[in-house]
Amino acid sequence: MQGSIGIDIGGTKIAIGLVDASGKILERRSFPTEVGKGPEAITREIAEAVLEIAQSSKLRIEGAGVGIAGQIDPRTGVVHFAPNLHWKNFPLAKQLSEQLGMPIGVVNDVRAAAWGEWIFGAGKGQKNLVCLFVGTGIGGGIAFDGKILEGATNCAGELGHIVVDLAGPLCSCGGFGCLEAIAGGWAIAQKATQRAAADRRKGDLLLQLCKGSPEMLTAKLVSLAAAQKDPMAMEILEEAKKGLIAGVTSIVNAFNPACVVLGGGVLDGNPVWVQEIDERVRQRALNAAAKELIIRGSLLKGDAGVVGAAYCVLKSIQ
Amino acid sequence: MQGSIGIDIGGTKIAIGLVDASGKILERRSFPTEVGKGPEAITREIAEAVLEIAQSSKLRIEGAGVGIAGQIDPRTGVVHFAPNLHWKNFPLAKQLSEQLGMPIGVVNDVRAAAWGEWIFGAGKGQKNLVCLFVGTGIGGGIAFDGKILEGATNCAGELGHIVVDLAGPLCSCGGFGCLEAIAGGWAIAQKATQRAAADRRKGDLLLQLCKGSPEMLTAKLVSLAAAQKDPMAMEILEEAKKGLIAGVTSIVNAFNPACVVLGGGVLDGNPVWVQEIDERVRQRALNAAAKELIIRGSLLKGDAGVVGAAYCVLKSIQ
Repeated sequence: MQGSIGIDIGGTKIAIGLVDASGKILERRSFPTEVGKGPEAITREIAEAVLEIAQSSKLRIEGAGVGIAGQIDPRTGVVHFAPNLHWKNFPLAKQLSEQLGMPIGVVNDVRAAAWGEWIFGAGKGQKNLVCLFVGTGIGGGIAFDGKILEGATNCAGELGHIVVDLAGPLCSCGGFGCLEAIAGGWAIAQKATQRAAADRRKGDLLLQLCKGSPEMLTAKLVSLAAAQKDPMAMEILEEAKKGLIAGVTSIVNAFNPACVVLGGGVLDGNPVWVQEIDERVRQRALNAAAKELIIRGSLLKGDAGVVGAAYCVLKSIQ
Repeated sequence: MQGSIGIDIGGTKIAIGLVDASGKILERRSFPTEVGKGPEAITREIAEAVLEIAQSSKLRIEGAGVGIAGQIDPRTGVVHFAPNLHWKNFPLAKQLSEQLGMPIGVVNDVRAAAWGEWIFGAGKGQKNLVCLFVGTGIGGGIAFDGKILEGATNCAGELGHIVVDLAGPLCSCGGFGCLEAIAGGWAIAQKATQRAAADRRKGDLLLQLCKGSPEMLTAKLVSLAAAQKDPMAMEILEEAKKGLIAGVTSIVNAFNPACVVLGGGVLDGNPVWVQEIDERVRQRALNAAAKELIIRGSLLKGDAGVVGAAYCVLKSIQ
């Protein structure tokens, strides 16, 4: 039986999985990303874990695919810039293939997750698909006709940076009113920090949850407070949800996908949103674009990146 | 020499052209769209004009392509719904082919124009292209890998209905804050009407241009007033331009096109906008998405629809 390795290099954690041809993860390893060690040492750690998995595996391992947040060249496997990891122009594929002796594929992490959801997850069998991942940041993948849109310079799908609010707040990208600046996890946390610090009475529950340090508030804590009906937290999340409804409406009208898959930590923290977004987008989008539309939550959750990266390398060597 | 007929059925005018294989219009006819006559009579008028052109032509005419505003089925050539013309479920391709005895292709008018600009116009030779046409309404076409994106229900490219302003005005689609509701010709005219009626002193020049009837104001008259430095007109257009900058930024970040072509009456009326939008989008969009981006004005202008429709039928029979 044929299989491949999927590797998801995140800013805080590295997840590795042995994935079979049906997208099932048979074996896992994960360890914290110690950014300070530098790319060579991290690559060695990854290689060791992969070899360990490979030795005990009964599958014929055809290659390893790596998903990583940043600008990469899928043809050479060079990571041009990975801001979370402070990597610049690192020849990841070359170094890994020297240590592992197998074909290596490198792909953007969000695009890997989109492949995962498309081929094995919530978007399985769809011809036209958009995946939107709402985590700390927001990213996406756009699939049609058996391909994921790469764009002219391999960065198509930056759906966190569609503008949904002309008068909106500053975004991490330097723009204003981007979807990410309204509904991304960092934006939710930032709003909570500012509002709880500015009004300690109304921000009481949020301040309790962060032990009095508003700068330690996270989107997760805001969801916790909202689950306890805290008005400040509920208002912040309502604004984020409105932004997402506008963003998904834009996506549906622009791309006319058959299916939109919504995933990422912010949606995991607010599980009722998928249905609410589905209902509201169906009302707001053009009838012709929404008539056969399906909106659903991620199926693979945190595994989408590993499964998708493993699939990408198989696909590239076939 | 091979050629084909392009037909652009608009709400006010029908334009017909004999187009050679290089996209050049060799012969033209045009006449007003008398909507009241109904689809059968209009189709007969079109067929007569095409036969007239065909009789005097030295080209071998391979077929006729029709671009029409509305929901069409490109496979059957049935016009499901053309709101401007009040056509419903009209078998346009069947009726025209019976009268002309040649293959007929039917395509959405905006998509026809996008094909025209892509194959013969400002987007020639590009691999990843978005065309945005800003007329009374706003529509677009998205091209990549030799194809124009159709979407799940053949309405991809409705770029006028991406949301750019969460708190924005009501759109013709029933949504709020769509790009079209801020920068479309009808929205510019509507704003001028409301503001000139509300403040007749500041609206003085606009009221002169519409002979005292603010409801007769058009986007074109607003551009005329702005060219004379009228503050009210300039403000209205500035708001529209800001909306377009946000919309094109969204498009660039989402699709990562190599080229964006901007066309349509509103841009024709404000010819400096293409350069201004180019500069501002380049600053606002993600560096990775904008680094090789080209933004340029339409080359075929009003001919894009005829040229594109003629191309589409050739392409479909080859």
